[in-house]
Amino acid sequence: MSTAGQVIKCKAAVAWGRGEPLSIEDVEVAPPKAHEVRVKIVATGVCHTDWEYLYETGKGMKFRPFPLVLGHEGAGIVESVGPGVTKFSPGDKVIPLFLPQCGECDRCRSPKTNHCRKNWDNTQMGVLADGTSRISCKNQQIYQFLGVSSFSQYTVVPDTSLTKIRSDAPLEKVCLLGCGVSTGYGAAVNTGKVEKDSLCAVFGLGAVGLAAVMGCRVAGAKRIIGVDINPDKFDKAKVLGATECVNPRDHNKPIQEVIVAMTHGGVDYALECVGSPDIMSAALESTADAWGTCIIAGWTETAAMKVMVEKILMGRTLKGTYFGGWKSVQDVPKLVDDYMNNRLELDEFITHSLPLDQINVAFDLLKSGKSIRTAESIEATFIRGRNKILHTTLAYFFYIDRIFLLLTL
Amino acid sequence: MSTAGQVIKCKAAVAWGRGEPLSIEDVEVAPPKAHEVRVKIVATGVCHTDWEYLYETGKGMKFRPFPLVLGHEGAGIVESVGPGVTKFSPGDKVIPLFLPQCGECDRCRSPKTNHCRKNWDNTQMGVLADGTSRISCKNQQIYQFLGVSSFSQYTVVPDTSLTKIRSDAPLEKVCLLGCGVSTGYGAAVNTGKVEKDSLCAVFGLGAVGLAAVMGCRVAGAKRIIGVDINPDKFDKAKVLGATECVNPRDHNKPIQEVIVAMTHGGVDYALECVGSPDIMSAALESTADAWGTCIIAGWTETAAMKVMVEKILMGRTLKGTYFGGWKSVQDVPKLVDDYMNNRLELDEFITHSLPLDQINVAFDLLKSGKSIRTAESIEATFIRGRNKILHTTLAYFFYIDRIFLLLTL
Repeated sequence: MSTAGQVIKCKAAVAWGRGEPLSIEDVEVAPPKAHEVRVKIVATGVCHTDWEYLYETGKGMKFRPFPLVLGHEGAGIVESVGPGVTKFSPGDKVIPLFLPQCGECDRCRSPKTNHCRKNWDNTQMGVLADGTSRISCKNQQIYQFLGVSSFSQYTVVPDTSLTKIRSDAPLEKVCLLGCGVSTGYGAAVNTGKVEKDSLCAVFGLGAVGLAAVMGCRVAGAKRIIGVDINPDKFDKAKVLGATECVNPRDHNKPIQEVIVAMTHGGVDYALECVGSPDIMSAALESTADAWGTCIIAGWTETAAMKVMVEKILMGRTLKGTYFGGWKSVQDVPKLVDDYMNNRLELDEFITHSLPLDQINVAFDLLKSGKSIRTAESIEATFIRGRNKILHTTLAYFFYIDRIFLLLTL
Repeated sequence: MSTAGQVIKCKAAVAWGRGEPLSIEDVEVAPPKAHEVRVKIVATGVCHTDWEYLYETGKGMKFRPFPLVLGHEGAGIVESVGPGVTKFSPGDKVIPLFLPQCGECDRCRSPKTNHCRKNWDNTQMGVLADGTSRISCKNQQIYQFLGVSSFSQYTVVPDTSLTKIRSDAPLEKVCLLGCGVSTGYGAAVNTGKVEKDSLCAVFGLGAVGLAAVMGCRVAGAKRIIGVDINPDKFDKAKVLGATECVNPRDHNKPIQEVIVAMTHGGVDYALECVGSPDIMSAALESTADAWGTCIIAGWTETAAMKVMVEKILMGRTLKGTYFGGWKSVQDVPKLVDDYMNNRLELDEFITHSLPLDQINVAFDLLKSGKSIRTAESIEATFIRGRNKILHTTLAYFFYIDRIFLLLTL
């Protein structure tokens, strides 16, 4: 029996308040309104940003209203569409997008940016175009994190924040293209425009950093130096393309000086994939003067980094990336194709698969440093947990603080 | 009688020590060694950097050894050449270059940079390739500022730090292409690659800033907003291409908020032409997210600027310019051609012409804010002062501090 037009009752992981563990609740998901699509989420990655908004608000993160359903790296199947939706039909495999692409604004028409702002102010505050959320629990509105909320079995998103992907794509893998892998990979190939035979350094070997390593490799970089304080990360980094790895703790001088010495003057491209202002400064100072480019891919919202002006005057460039520079609606399906055609790696990024009711375990794994990415299965029965543990490595959100301390002490 | 091969006795303005007024002295200028050229300086601009190295060491400027002869924005005529020099002959009109272009190194071969480092470590410390200066006074070696020392009637420079210009070029004008005008103009057209119909803001309307305004105009910018706390600058800025000017003192909110409001979201290009870290931050925050570019043209050596990371993540780019991105030897003659063909303005930049023995008056004019550029005549007789006062405007080196205070209070 079709559920179109009906309120759907399902499970979701609700964040009732800042700093509180998530709670699996029965929620109600309203039908999509005009230009909205209701999606059955099949799998979602757990990103450090989810964790940070819950536990780090005020510490580098802006305030977001609670209660909310986190999750912004999901994949699923269209359940029903609202009035005016022409590009999606029930049964389509889709990836929800925290960065929209309306296709009509100045930014969408410009080749210089992917920063579409359709519904932006609303989705940043956890609601859709009409100022409300489609998710409720116990008669209370539950905000939708970045307008997505993939930690729910069903969610509703604007049709400009959704992309259709090929029907044979495995959703429990390609969900990672909704955030981390696309961000790191695109930071190298789009934002940095890493060149063949160049020297690169990637700071932080979590999911974003490993994807950046992969991007540098695909771009033909000659040397790709992985930097992390956890040497357990190095094997995986080498699988994805790192030619060498450095642990700052093995050296008694700042990591930027180590990199400059290793490369006789600095790298052509440094990619910061941690989100720490101090590491951003170190990454910038690791680049060669005359033409070095530092790309910031790590996320922080309220912090400032220190830039030695002379480093900029001597020819360096500092740039940021957001969703890897990809135009979301048009590019994510191409990335799915690349994965399906073995031009892009995803399997290596998944260390655990857990059912939704284990979401706090997933957060604990992130916090305790035992996963790169945990892909949550959101099937109604919660029985698809597979525990495919490839590695137990420090989650990158956590060693932010550790590297931070190292560099500032 | 030829002076080739002889020590030349002439006048120079010697800086005997940090913070002391310059002293006109009889100096001895040795003949050029291998790959060096001795130049009779005919005219030189007085740049705020000259003043700063004398009076501001330790306050944003690195230490340079004294005694030295300042001046790095000169033009002259080749008097004699050392062994191995093939590209210059006595009588050639030339512009000495504080930024070399050897033509052979990786950097010279790359289209991405103009940062040649030929003899760099030596010239930065005031000596030539053999580790010594060619200027002496009272049997004491006098260091050559940036390897140039244009505040001397004669100087000796490496043949890779010199460019030949057309014989009909007026040296008392084109000397300005040795630093300030080239820097600001190139910041817009080379480093920023300002696009047609774009929105621009130029912070600081001294010589570098006015040249940046001119660069934006030549690039076809639609709006060029000049920013200065001295409204006396605005007329000249408009002559050179500013479509409007803003005085931060006329507003009770930060200048970046004023610019963002004026442009409904920020400018495409902001050019910082002051050298103040706080103004650099303001300039960056004046740019539009998604694609805004901030170019740092103002000079400071030891200071750090604060960059709100989110500003970078939202699509802004921060770049620096050094000598406007021009490949010095090859490009300066083209700029001279542009001036001669009325495609580039220089006359508007000159507010005073004074003889060399009035050098401290020139510094006072800079300090008291009465000149954009003072071109010094270096003729042996010191009698060519013309006092062609076009404007009495705040010298830009000085209002650095004033804007700095304004923004930080």
